[in-house]
Amino acid sequence: MEYEYGQEPGAPVRAGIPEHGRIPKYYAAKVEIAALLKELGEGEPLPAERDLALRFEVSRETLRQALRELILEGRLRRLGRGTVVAGPKMEQPLSLASYTEGVRLQGRTPGRHLVGLDRFPCPAPLAGDLGLQVGDPVWHMERVLLADDERVGLESTYVAVGRVPALDTDFTPDSSFYAYLHDRLGIGFGDADERLETVLATPREALLIGTPGALPMLLIHRLSRDTEGRPLERVRSLFRGDRFSFTTHLGGPAPG
Amino acid sequence: MEYEYGQEPGAPVRAGIPEHGRIPKYYAAKVEIAALLKELGEGEPLPAERDLALRFEVSRETLRQALRELILEGRLRRLGRGTVVAGPKMEQPLSLASYTEGVRLQGRTPGRHLVGLDRFPCPAPLAGDLGLQVGDPVWHMERVLLADDERVGLESTYVAVGRVPALDTDFTPDSSFYAYLHDRLGIGFGDADERLETVLATPREALLIGTPGALPMLLIHRLSRDTEGRPLERVRSLFRGDRFSFTTHLGGPAPG
Repeated sequence: MEYEYGQEPGAPVRAGIPEHGRIPKYYAAKVEIAALLKELGEGEPLPAERDLALRFEVSRETLRQALRELILEGRLRRLGRGTVVAGPKMEQPLSLASYTEGVRLQGRTPGRHLVGLDRFPCPAPLAGDLGLQVGDPVWHMERVLLADDERVGLESTYVAVGRVPALDTDFTPDSSFYAYLHDRLGIGFGDADERLETVLATPREALLIGTPGALPMLLIHRLSRDTEGRPLERVRSLFRGDRFSFTTHLGGPAPG
Repeated sequence: MEYEYGQEPGAPVRAGIPEHGRIPKYYAAKVEIAALLKELGEGEPLPAERDLALRFEVSRETLRQALRELILEGRLRRLGRGTVVAGPKMEQPLSLASYTEGVRLQGRTPGRHLVGLDRFPCPAPLAGDLGLQVGDPVWHMERVLLADDERVGLESTYVAVGRVPALDTDFTPDSSFYAYLHDRLGIGFGDADERLETVLATPREALLIGTPGALPMLLIHRLSRDTEGRPLERVRSLFRGDRFSFTTHLGGPAPG
């Protein structure tokens, strides 16, 4: 019986090792280091690379490939000049609530840092999404998303200037855009369509968010409408794949 | 004005190139190849590596790094011995509906291929999820997910033997488990909690699904309950990150 009884049901079967048992050397080291990380516990520093290479009998280069994957997966984190055992990923609900609310729910302090706010004529691919004519003025607001001062994502919001005329003068860019829409303009969210995928961070995104290049990210495309069903915004929200997971509750059909 | 008006709103700002303009050579080649792929269109073969390296003035090694990222992101696909321009990712709804239904909605033929069916004593981490005592018998059914005969994912289902006693003899493993539960056992799905994250394919998973090693995957953890609210199953569903995206509709608060 090859089944490993003690494994977590959310973990890969057989720790990811094929039935024939042959795996790359770096992966064997990765499995052993992953077990070590569990013993060490969150926040503990990783032993020196030299010691790990000796202990698991691999070259420094092979060891680094194992560590690189553990970092990409969010099980190790660079902290200053060292590397520590990472905590679990943040869990952000997929809901109409804003990023701000989602982060607060997890007991963290949300923040945003403005990268840029541009006004430009609506291009064709966006016009349908926002219910505009090509050439109508549109805002593009780009912000880095923060949780407890850690940069965790990057968000591009596209919204018609006609809906939010004073976005450049009246809105505080490190606050919640949804709270602004609601409190200042009386615009409420009705519903939204979202599409979620994984992509690799581009060099620009990696620089802005402070991640390794080509880190797998979670990207959410959102198209939202107000309570009257009018198109409101198109948002591209990019989250660190090593730091975030998304949760949702799926309801059943109506009883009866 | 640096804003690129014509870009798709879902695409990275400035094609991922930082404001200072310095990017790795491979990334510059990647941006140019991505533009070429758009011109070529879905299913068209990629020109020979030698020709591309000459055209974009990069080494074969640099070119291959660019192609590797485009493959990981699902913009290029290996097909037999060649490489072709990939189509858009499949869009699977996040819903209580089964994988089978989701794939059919997209006009594709769903399939499953049994990897293994084990019966084992319920370990502690799973007991709470399934409402069982440690040691109660549990099934673990592992299946490769297919769409039009293409391997696209891997699914582990954990369910109490007490709920589905004849899973090993009465169930056809390439059919829908949810249809079986409903039609044969009268068990209906009530609701489920899901958590979605991105992980790297393990060597075993890459072998079973036929992907490159360490491909970014979308992993969904599901805990579902029946219509009476009793725990039903814990599922670990892994989908090729280069082939799948997930969609959801977020409703607003009740009117009034």
